[in-house]
Amino acid sequence: MGELETVRVGIVGASGYGGVQLVRLIRDHPQLDLVYLGGDSSAGKPFSDLYPHLSQATDLIIESVDVDTIADRCQVVFLSLPNGLAYQMAPRLLEKGCKVLDLSADYRFSNLETYKNWYGGDRADAETAAVAVYGLPELYRDRIKDAQLVGCPGCYPTASILALAPLLKQGMIVPNSAIIDAKSGISGAGRQAKTNLLLAEADNSVAAYGVGRHRHTPEIESIGSDLAGQDILVQFTPHLMPMVRGILSTVYATLRDPGLVREDLVTIYTAFYRNSPWVRVLPAGVFPQTKWAMNSNMCYLGVEIDQRTDRAIVISAIDNLLKGQAGQAIQCLNIMMGWDETLGLPELGFYP
Amino acid sequence: MGELETVRVGIVGASGYGGVQLVRLIRDHPQLDLVYLGGDSSAGKPFSDLYPHLSQATDLIIESVDVDTIADRCQVVFLSLPNGLAYQMAPRLLEKGCKVLDLSADYRFSNLETYKNWYGGDRADAETAAVAVYGLPELYRDRIKDAQLVGCPGCYPTASILALAPLLKQGMIVPNSAIIDAKSGISGAGRQAKTNLLLAEADNSVAAYGVGRHRHTPEIESIGSDLAGQDILVQFTPHLMPMVRGILSTVYATLRDPGLVREDLVTIYTAFYRNSPWVRVLPAGVFPQTKWAMNSNMCYLGVEIDQRTDRAIVISAIDNLLKGQAGQAIQCLNIMMGWDETLGLPELGFYP
Amino acid sequence: MGELETVRVGIVGASGYGGVQLVRLIRDHPQLDLVYLGGDSSAGKPFSDLYPHLSQATDLIIESVDVDTIADRCQVVFLSLPNGLAYQMAPRLLEKGCKVLDLSADYRFSNLETYKNWYGGDRADAETAAVAVYGLPELYRDRIKDAQLVGCPGCYPTASILALAPLLKQGMIVPNSAIIDAKSGISGAGRQAKTNLLLAEADNSVAAYGVGRHRHTPEIESIGSDLAGQDILVQFTPHLMPMVRGILSTVYATLRDPGLVREDLVTIYTAFYRNSPWVRVLPAGVFPQTKWAMNSNMCYLGVEIDQRTDRAIVISAIDNLLKGQAGQAIQCLNIMMGWDETLGLPELGFYP
Amino acid sequence: MGELETVRVGIVGASGYGGVQLVRLIRDHPQLDLVYLGGDSSAGKPFSDLYPHLSQATDLIIESVDVDTIADRCQVVFLSLPNGLAYQMAPRLLEKGCKVLDLSADYRFSNLETYKNWYGGDRADAETAAVAVYGLPELYRDRIKDAQLVGCPGCYPTASILALAPLLKQGMIVPNSAIIDAKSGISGAGRQAKTNLLLAEADNSVAAYGVGRHRHTPEIESIGSDLAGQDILVQFTPHLMPMVRGILSTVYATLRDPGLVREDLVTIYTAFYRNSPWVRVLPAGVFPQTKWAMNSNMCYLGVEIDQRTDRAIVISAIDNLLKGQAGQAIQCLNIMMGWDETLGLPELGFYP
Repeated sequence: MGELETVRVGIVGASGYGGVQLVRLIRDHPQLDLVYLGGDSSAGKPFSDLYPHLSQATDLIIESVDVDTIADRCQVVFLSLPNGLAYQMAPRLLEKGCKVLDLSADYRFSNLETYKNWYGGDRADAETAAVAVYGLPELYRDRIKDAQLVGCPGCYPTASILALAPLLKQGMIVPNSAIIDAKSGISGAGRQAKTNLLLAEADNSVAAYGVGRHRHTPEIESIGSDLAGQDILVQFTPHLMPMVRGILSTVYATLRDPGLVREDLVTIYTAFYRNSPWVRVLPAGVFPQTKWAMNSNMCYLGVEIDQRTDRAIVISAIDNLLKGQAGQAIQCLNIMMGWDETLGLPELGFYP
Repeated sequence: MGELETVRVGIVGASGYGGVQLVRLIRDHPQLDLVYLGGDSSAGKPFSDLYPHLSQATDLIIESVDVDTIADRCQVVFLSLPNGLAYQMAPRLLEKGCKVLDLSADYRFSNLETYKNWYGGDRADAETAAVAVYGLPELYRDRIKDAQLVGCPGCYPTASILALAPLLKQGMIVPNSAIIDAKSGISGAGRQAKTNLLLAEADNSVAAYGVGRHRHTPEIESIGSDLAGQDILVQFTPHLMPMVRGILSTVYATLRDPGLVREDLVTIYTAFYRNSPWVRVLPAGVFPQTKWAMNSNMCYLGVEIDQRTDRAIVISAIDNLLKGQAGQAIQCLNIMMGWDETLGLPELGFYP
Repeated sequence: MGELETVRVGIVGASGYGGVQLVRLIRDHPQLDLVYLGGDSSAGKPFSDLYPHLSQATDLIIESVDVDTIADRCQVVFLSLPNGLAYQMAPRLLEKGCKVLDLSADYRFSNLETYKNWYGGDRADAETAAVAVYGLPELYRDRIKDAQLVGCPGCYPTASILALAPLLKQGMIVPNSAIIDAKSGISGAGRQAKTNLLLAEADNSVAAYGVGRHRHTPEIESIGSDLAGQDILVQFTPHLMPMVRGILSTVYATLRDPGLVREDLVTIYTAFYRNSPWVRVLPAGVFPQTKWAMNSNMCYLGVEIDQRTDRAIVISAIDNLLKGQAGQAIQCLNIMMGWDETLGLPELGFYP
Repeated sequence: MGELETVRVGIVGASGYGGVQLVRLIRDHPQLDLVYLGGDSSAGKPFSDLYPHLSQATDLIIESVDVDTIADRCQVVFLSLPNGLAYQMAPRLLEKGCKVLDLSADYRFSNLETYKNWYGGDRADAETAAVAVYGLPELYRDRIKDAQLVGCPGCYPTASILALAPLLKQGMIVPNSAIIDAKSGISGAGRQAKTNLLLAEADNSVAAYGVGRHRHTPEIESIGSDLAGQDILVQFTPHLMPMVRGILSTVYATLRDPGLVREDLVTIYTAFYRNSPWVRVLPAGVFPQTKWAMNSNMCYLGVEIDQRTDRAIVISAIDNLLKGQAGQAIQCLNIMMGWDETLGLPELGFYP
């Protein structure tokens, strides 16, 4: 084991929930050495000013963002910024030889027109976008291996695509029949002080948002179409849950072949994810709760077929900040570096 | 105002959450006088032993259940019991002249075969079941007016049917296309000491249950078929939320006529519920959160059309224990007595 | 009953949690008519823009704050503003004949030096402050009756003083021995978008704040000294709870007479609050949970004596936004108007 | 590093929350090998029937409890049973050469009379009890090193004693002046299906319990007296919080020397815990929230002096199931085996 040499990594956008997960994960990773934290709004502050209990985890000071400094210092850079900032920085970091993993939406779309339709902005980095790889290892492990730039999936798309992929890949469902009803813990909205995210407002309440127009829709459709080998549409509705972490995605799709039973689905899913250590297909009749995945990089899948309606129902549970964000980014990096995909990542949280 | 004479009511099954809502609602109702509380497991105890803070609400002692006693004492009886008990008691109560409102599933089905398929049991009260009226006033107000026996709807069916009814009644959707993804606070499971309902287990977690086989499915289908004028199937999946009260039902259905826009739906829904004081259709683009309905008998409806997928999405929010259970029972009783449908019922909870 | 004539009331600072409670309470109050909502930051917006589910409760538009307009329109004004604003407005409102109930700290101190020491600011309304009455009806009912200006108590002082008053009044405890460990739901911090109040941060966590320096300390001491007939100090530590509403105050004090048993305390407390409909002393051995008081104006008190340590332990539970704020203000107004103290106020919330 | 040989450990009482923490911790511990799970009520079931998401953590079957089997198989035994069972089993396990760590109250008292007064029962194992060591490493590290039998501290005593120890040890406070107001997550009550622990009952509510009579009182007093060198009494009141994990203990005590300032306390506490890797004293003015300690074995301490009242206020935060229970047991075992005290234990959870 190459224990002698570690890889120097930096995080741009360290103050948010994505950043703090990365700090925490990198600390426990045997091959990574955190050498840089960047962020304009908190520049000059020790990281532990933002998260006092992490003073034993790092004594780094957050620095204002400068590409040359980053590239001098880091071999690998995680960008954990609001949408629309990574594409202003990634091309130069790549040029200087850094590997880049972007946690925003900026490099999730091979087709920049789709990006612009849903996210707006005017960008001129089509060449860079063209070499970016979608960082969902269970589907694109081989491409990630050779990538210099990874666009890490959104939290909802991770949960939704892992639930749908075997059905789409094997042409088992009626195109456009997929309905994804997703439920997320509130940390998915980030560490921003907004009224609707206050405990007083959000506790003991459930609500849908972005009905018919959430920006994770085209991301799911784009990857789903790639899997299906044809353009597909999905219905995606996210809901805010009165809890901190976790996504449960309940996916409905009409089967092409009504003769299947749920044990078939267990077999098909198990085979599909045979080489994926971070997906666990549950036995027939068992459905996951998000708490099982909390503080872990695991995605749990429960499958069902309703023979009355000829629909498959697949339920996925992940931790939105780990498998749905920072954990998956580390998983991608493990693959990029030729390490074991599970290296340094938490398999189990504590229960309850 | 008939303030001189009040109606004497009793509750069988007073110790559970349905019972305690009824005690609370009856206390605030100007025309009702609570004279009897029955329950075999708590017989002999003052009600305030079970709910100490309600000692100022009632000093009644819970009595063991005896039909003659009840009929002597009460003009109206609420049965708030586990499924399978009401039908052993209701026929005799009716015979003795009581009006009966049953909160269990026993009298929700005109077709007893459906009941037996999903609930089991061997019952011989087909004649009684035939005269029972389904207690959803927004659809069956006229029948409730003359009913002696009301089978009060389940909490999920209330939220789901109110969301679907205008679409089904007006033949706007493809039959069998309706998918209902419902999210409920944990009080819907009652006051039973089960491990999975513990705060330690259920807090900060979300899970589906009864996937493809929940017993509220045939109830929704039975009323939905009545509305549609043809037999329909629905896909219904309930989820347990980490919160106390409230149901959010997210309903998806494929439109027959793709030209509609959401403003059309607002118009159609508003017209459909014009005379229903307990349903409030929200303006286009506004979707309810369950907290709005908490401690109120109101059902809030938000409607949307996704023109990319030609689907209607309707989201309903209720308090599962009020509009979804005890409040609706009082609403039915108001109608049975010829009173205003809103009498004595809470319109607004406190926020936040 | 004077049902013919209602009193016209206005609220300045309607957009916060205090404001929305008042809107809700006034709507259910048989003698009050809400005619004015003021607030500079939301001026021009319908109130229902801030709280959409309350569109059926009021169609008032929030107006920018102007004393002449308010005085023209209102007989009674509730000021629900951040500390330091009420004293700029109250003298003029009083001059124009309005009755004023202030929910901030501005008029809670007869001694303005104490106010200035803890709250800062430079104010010249000593004459007005001198006629203000502290709005805790259980202690100052007679003064409130004749008041034109009421300084409504803080939420923590309400819970704490009601727990301590009989002990202090009757000289039963060692002066300065009182320790108040208080636990509050997060709505007590108001509807402000601060990071530490986010559900993601505050849920599943407990923390103390303002240790040794919270500004409710001098308020408790000032009223406590009045009761004790001598200057006393208290130790007061507030804690933020992962919940929306409610305060539990656990009060410890060393007894002067070690011979007492808890039944004595029940007797003493019951006698002390004999004429106070909004305080309920629990039987020996029963202690309140905050949920009992939620959405109600009631204060529950549980008392204990630890004979090993010669300490009294008194535990009070209130809803911080009702008995701890807006409900108590209405209770005071009822007294000011000569109405029954309970008029229009909620006695019981819904459980669970 | 002794990586070649691991120690074989067993858990008796594996089905509860203590058991599941141990399973999880042992799995991540480099020197421990879990070889036995015992429990009479779940005997015959795979452990993963109780915690399905842990099927990848262990495939052990729970066995009925038999001392010979355990001793044959295990070098170290954790007893995670209700009070009153360990003392029926520990003497025989010790006799057969096992090291025993008991998580119940059975071996926390060197004086069995105190045990009997508070816990009842008739036990004849005084000789065994006399050699048991109280498993709080920060105070009794040297004795634990040589122990065969460790009585692991209760969760409340851990948090309370760590907060009080420097004050008591150095005679800084007035004896009997200590008041401990403790707040615990609900997992402290275990995985038992009781009505008051249901989410519907316990969420959004706070309550005290065991007021003046909780059985952790004599445990705190017994260790506190040992530290103080004289018999002391403490006032201890536990409260149930609407959250899953964590204890916050707020400790008040009157200073003997009124001249101290809080920076003195920081210095004194830092020195006292200099060699204790699992206690972290926070800078002056910083107080812990329980979330910082969640899923970690760390105890955070914040200290304050109120110069108005001459009291020290110390606030401790731990994870009740780790530093308050299973994590501390592993910490003790590390010491018993001569390993680093931190071996295999989680330092940081994930935030938020």
